Amino acid sequence: MPESEDPPYAFTGLDRVFHERARLGIVTSLAGQPGGLQFADLRSLCGLTDGNLNRHLATLEQAGFLVVTKGAARGRRATTCRLTEFGRERFIAYLAALEDALREGTRATAAMALRPGTT
Amino acid sequence: MPESEDPPYAFTGLDRVFHERARLGIVTSLAGQPGGLQFADLRSLCGLTDGNLNRHLATLEQAGFLVVTKGAARGRRATTCRLTEFGRERFIAYLAALEDALREGTRATAAMALRPGTT
Repeated sequence: MPESEDPPYAFTGLDRVFHERARLGIVTSLAGQPGGLQFADLRSLCGLTDGNLNRHLATLEQAGFLVVTKGAARGRRATTCRLTEFGRERFIAYLAALEDALREGTRATAAMALRPGTT
Repeated sequence: MPESEDPPYAFTGLDRVFHERARLGIVTSLAGQPGGLQFADLRSLCGLTDGNLNRHLATLEQAGFLVVTKGAARGRRATTCRLTEFGRERFIAYLAALEDALREGTRATAAMALRPGTT
């Protein structure tokens, strides 16, 4: 098998910031919300603890994909989380890479299914 | 937003053993190879170092998804890696969960694209 400069299964397009499961849930929750979401709503949607959600929000914010704003909502102090335009663009690119990976995986498992008796 | 027993964006079907990017490449490489692949070929396909590949193979083996066999191939000592039937079944379930996650992400980004002027 030849060496290659770009290994076919390195999946380098799968940005690890988005690919982590909890962060994928957070970004998916936010991707359709131009006004962002409250911390508590995001926590419920993703089934995360406060600590985990805070940790993943910090990672997304450091990457420039998300802004966290402290302010007031519904008369109470509230933390709003919103994707940046940069974050949304990078997420769309990630989803394209994910679609490629899914296609490769589906093709590989389908190829195997055509060979009965393999274990 | 109502609390739910099954948070919609927890993505619990995305088994972390498969979801890690390097392991996703390893399993995709192996999924269409009923006879398995040699360690060196797998390393080239996935663009991993010996150390990283060994570490991820151990994780997959511990989960029962993969067997590593030391033997001879082409007259040389060789290490063969092969998915188990259990691993293949679990990978197919993972791919179904991944397809769901991809659909959610695509739907969310498409919804946002319909609202011009959002940042």
